[in-house]
Amino acid sequence: MIIAFENYLRLQTDLNGADIRRIGALAVPRKLRRNEFLLREGEVCRHKVFIVSGLLRTFGLTPDGSEHILQFSPENTWTLDAESYDRQIPSHYSISAVEPGEVLLWTKADFDGLLEEIPQLKSFAGQLISRNIYSGRQRLLTALSATPEKKYEDFIKNSPELLSRLPLRMIAAYLGISLKTLNRVRQAQLLRS
Amino acid sequence: MIIAFENYLRLQTDLNGADIRRIGALAVPRKLRRNEFLLREGEVCRHKVFIVSGLLRTFGLTPDGSEHILQFSPENTWTLDAESYDRQIPSHYSISAVEPGEVLLWTKADFDGLLEEIPQLKSFAGQLISRNIYSGRQRLLTALSATPEKKYEDFIKNSPELLSRLPLRMIAAYLGISLKTLNRVRQAQLLRS
Repeated sequence: MIIAFENYLRLQTDLNGADIRRIGALAVPRKLRRNEFLLREGEVCRHKVFIVSGLLRTFGLTPDGSEHILQFSPENTWTLDAESYDRQIPSHYSISAVEPGEVLLWTKADFDGLLEEIPQLKSFAGQLISRNIYSGRQRLLTALSATPEKKYEDFIKNSPELLSRLPLRMIAAYLGISLKTLNRVRQAQLLRS
Repeated sequence: MIIAFENYLRLQTDLNGADIRRIGALAVPRKLRRNEFLLREGEVCRHKVFIVSGLLRTFGLTPDGSEHILQFSPENTWTLDAESYDRQIPSHYSISAVEPGEVLLWTKADFDGLLEEIPQLKSFAGQLISRNIYSGRQRLLTALSATPEKKYEDFIKNSPELLSRLPLRMIAAYLGISLKTLNRVRQAQLLRS
């Protein structure tokens, strides 16, 4: 599991071998069953998480109990609730496994230490945060502006590899449309193609 | 104008007087007329912007020409298009003045220099970015999940001071609802109260 992570760092960064091993050495591996929670709303997010295999989702619940998905995190990506992690306060969101998978966890103390000691890791972390901001802005614009048809088209275009891995109700909860609307959109698309 | 900015830094950070003056010395003041653009879609965002007075909006246009507002920036806040600024590529968004106002601008080269030289400025900038991420997440959840009534209520709760400063069509463009729906929601609210 650590080897997959080290390969990822080798491909994505210019970190040297010694630093990569230092980062890997502090990781705690964990297996996740389908639907297992990594973080529950109200808990403090204590770890930075790298997904080696599987697929996680980050979601919030509205008072009526309906689920809204902020983010899907497939293999070779990172996840956490930033506000809860940075400030060590209870999270408004939950993170759970859509598929069985394997993740690596770093405690905040360990990861903060690594960021201090390894400037290239810090600049790589900064890049990841920036990309998250850019895509978050785009996602907000889509959420504000797009029709259900356009939202679904964008999703297929941006995340084709996720389409077959997700139940439709989760795609609907990610797009901010009802399952009924999603079914209508898909039906119309099938008829057109 | 610089004095108002220096007071802001004194209140918000633990920067010392010499550093505050260094930051202020590189700022270029600019006055904005109502509806004047600071950045147009397709241009590169070349400056970090601090709003001394007035109110700016950041918005994107969809292919049908309708406007969707990502962010309002009142006095004592910062604005820019992060992706365009960081990577010096054309922006997908525009920034323009809702009210006449005064802003301070730093070129990327100047501000990057300040960030290098003044560690407390860097950590303050990091805090601002983090807060932006937290509130962006909350805003996305609202956009995905809330009814028009709830969106409007949240807006009144979170930004009461903006309500009287904005035309209704901009509030609708920020909430991702039509002007007609916003009018209906407001009408129902007036009848209830």
